[in-house]
Amino acid sequence: MADVVEKERRILVALDEGEESTHALSWCLKNVISENSKDSLVLLYVKPQRVVYPAPDGTGYLFSSDILAAMDKYGTDVADSVIEKAKRMCKDLNDVKVETRVEHGDPRDVICQMEEKLGADALVMGSRGYGPIKRALLGSVSNHCAQNVKCPVLIVKKPKSTSGNN
Amino acid sequence: MADVVEKERRILVALDEGEESTHALSWCLKNVISENSKDSLVLLYVKPQRVVYPAPDGTGYLFSSDILAAMDKYGTDVADSVIEKAKRMCKDLNDVKVETRVEHGDPRDVICQMEEKLGADALVMGSRGYGPIKRALLGSVSNHCAQNVKCPVLIVKKPKSTSGNN
Repeated sequence: MADVVEKERRILVALDEGEESTHALSWCLKNVISENSKDSLVLLYVKPQRVVYPAPDGTGYLFSSDILAAMDKYGTDVADSVIEKAKRMCKDLNDVKVETRVEHGDPRDVICQMEEKLGADALVMGSRGYGPIKRALLGSVSNHCAQNVKCPVLIVKKPKSTSGNN
Repeated sequence: MADVVEKERRILVALDEGEESTHALSWCLKNVISENSKDSLVLLYVKPQRVVYPAPDGTGYLFSSDILAAMDKYGTDVADSVIEKAKRMCKDLNDVKVETRVEHGDPRDVICQMEEKLGADALVMGSRGYGPIKRALLGSVSNHCAQNVKCPVLIVKKPKSTSGNN
């Protein structure tokens, strides 16, 4: 492909903890990125916002600061784990520059803002990003991004062999 | 890319009359397909269903059979024109096998059925497929397909330079 595409492309890959996200990166590496190309790859993980639980009597919060700190620590560990796994998947790319970003907020907003900020040439993501209940309430992250970003969006599903249908 | 991907990929490109659809094919050719690869490309155009207008007095149809035949002829001409333009865009692909298909029906259903029938490795399409009114009623074709097909879906927007925003 390097002889077809001269221009350096900046490809944003939005990651989460799910299997579809890993598969999206894998599909992108096999099918879109040339291992010797001058593309740059930005791996983005968005830490979900911490849910604040007020105590039932309205006099503070349900969880102590220790528990909240432990939840934050867990969130950071998950982010590190997702990013490390993604970096390992990219280790065989010779000339491709790989950057990682961990941001905080609603994935739908953060991904769209990052695409605009980077002027990305393509956005790659799994088809999910929320569990079924949140998805019913908020819509899927990938649908939102496909509607709102300017660049081409590649949405990758879980591979057929692990979907339970085949 | 040919040295990275050994397996032949079958890529389905869903076309319509719009500029985004042409740009989607163009982006796919530049960024996903290697000109010397063994990929196969299926160019699909779905002719919209003919709208039947009953006469206000209920005694037949508003348009004569001549007019309906002219409308069908127009639909066929549009299909031919879209497919011919797409084939011209693919003429420099050396080893890539290019097939064309013209089908008839609701694009959302036909594209999903074709993806399943072909066992496509990726679906490429523009982000639209209906005008604004139909889209408000039916939802966008690309959203529907992204939710319902099993393979990775690449949704390509109109290029920034022609969007009127830049």
